Amino acid sequence: MRNFLLTLEYDGTSFHGWQKQPGRRTAQGALESALSHVCRAEIAVDAVSRTDAGVHAYGQRAGFRTDSPIPPDRLVIAANNILCSGRALAGKAGDIRVRAAEPVPDGFHARFDAVGKKYIYKILSSPSPDIFLRDRYWQTQEAPEPGLMAAAAEHIKGTHDFKSFQSAGGNVRATTVRTVHGLEIYRWDTGAGMATAIEVTGDGFLYNMVRIIAGTLYLAGIGKIGPDSVKCILESGERKNAGCTAPPQGLYLAEVYYSEAEMAMAAARHFVRQ
Amino acid sequence: MRNFLLTLEYDGTSFHGWQKQPGRRTAQGALESALSHVCRAEIAVDAVSRTDAGVHAYGQRAGFRTDSPIPPDRLVIAANNILCSGRALAGKAGDIRVRAAEPVPDGFHARFDAVGKKYIYKILSSPSPDIFLRDRYWQTQEAPEPGLMAAAAEHIKGTHDFKSFQSAGGNVRATTVRTVHGLEIYRWDTGAGMATAIEVTGDGFLYNMVRIIAGTLYLAGIGKIGPDSVKCILESGERKNAGCTAPPQGLYLAEVYYSEAEMAMAAARHFVRQ
Repeated sequence: MRNFLLTLEYDGTSFHGWQKQPGRRTAQGALESALSHVCRAEIAVDAVSRTDAGVHAYGQRAGFRTDSPIPPDRLVIAANNILCSGRALAGKAGDIRVRAAEPVPDGFHARFDAVGKKYIYKILSSPSPDIFLRDRYWQTQEAPEPGLMAAAAEHIKGTHDFKSFQSAGGNVRATTVRTVHGLEIYRWDTGAGMATAIEVTGDGFLYNMVRIIAGTLYLAGIGKIGPDSVKCILESGERKNAGCTAPPQGLYLAEVYYSEAEMAMAAARHFVRQ
Repeated sequence: MRNFLLTLEYDGTSFHGWQKQPGRRTAQGALESALSHVCRAEIAVDAVSRTDAGVHAYGQRAGFRTDSPIPPDRLVIAANNILCSGRALAGKAGDIRVRAAEPVPDGFHARFDAVGKKYIYKILSSPSPDIFLRDRYWQTQEAPEPGLMAAAAEHIKGTHDFKSFQSAGGNVRATTVRTVHGLEIYRWDTGAGMATAIEVTGDGFLYNMVRIIAGTLYLAGIGKIGPDSVKCILESGERKNAGCTAPPQGLYLAEVYYSEAEMAMAAARHFVRQ
């Protein structure tokens, strides 16, 4: 069997999330169907992150095994030909793409061997909504102040028990301690509003953790809570003390890391993609 | 009867164009249905431009008459409440929005009184497609050179017979002479590719004229035709000599003008919206 690591990009709008479900269109389902066709055998794909409905990916990673002798570059082209067919028909076709496929050693596991990830959360602030970006940003009327958000973010960086930043419904695990290696705020003008991005790099994230961080930093940004109250929220261990779970369409899984060195460099690097 | 002029914004992706058709979702159909509900009577709306399927609008204009006493600002809010309901459900809801409604004199006609329009045509160039922008740009692998496009554009500016820039299927009119008041090329980096925008202002456009201008300027931009051959294409009066009809998803109806002075100012002004 050959072992492959895929890099994937998808627009989460029309998917019922990553994970395969009977009778619903999911990213995993669309991808497995295309790969099974290309490899002429049933393919099962295991992704690093099971993103929720509406959540996007610039750089999801997933592994699969196959007996097919197809070269990696041909695999990418053939899978994308299927995933993007009927692309002229706007809408569902063409919303997931294989960016790369690389052969990896037999013992490598895309999910278990990942040491960290980077997510981007995007907010667009304008008195009136931008319909062209309705599925790409959390749209707010009030514009958060990036200095206040950055001050609040300082308390989130580092190793903490993030129990208050976890939604019910996640896997109950032995520990809710995670390390946030980088957390940066930046903004730009889209012409139709002020965009604010939260870029967070860490060794792992609890269920909805990034969206709750976004909801909480937004509250700090509009002055509803003081930046230092984030310290108290963390210490309380109570979900109800943190901000709302920001909506899924603002969230992007940007990168996955397989070494501490790679993650350390990435945490300090600004991921440019508007 | 009160006479209203609407300013509309829509994402053309999920519409079968502007014009109402039985059994298909159109921008006119969605808008008339919302306005009829708000005004409690059957409303018929007449737009300046009957945009094709996939074509977008930042500033379409449309007129309608009603006996309803509703104030204009309430009309906007009530119509948008209907048009954007279920907006959390990504996809079709929320893809059309009333930006403004203004009372106009009884004799005013949104379409007949318009003296000109501005369109934007957007191209995104990158070796690999950006799936997040698949319905927003014409995506090309090769990046056109803006200097060559601008040189070619010089021949299109002014008053000409644009017969070679008209698709079959348009209304056969007495004249194919039109005046292009402004035609500018500008570009920016999206982070995932180089964006090129063509901004064209004129007193009227033949069927598919902007998309054929885009297809022709692109050919000049990648060096497939010399900039000066655009002069010959115009003089020939033959559609087959011009470039392809660029795809609909790159086209945006940006503004509509009701006075020559307004249009002259707008032709010189850069419409900033990425």
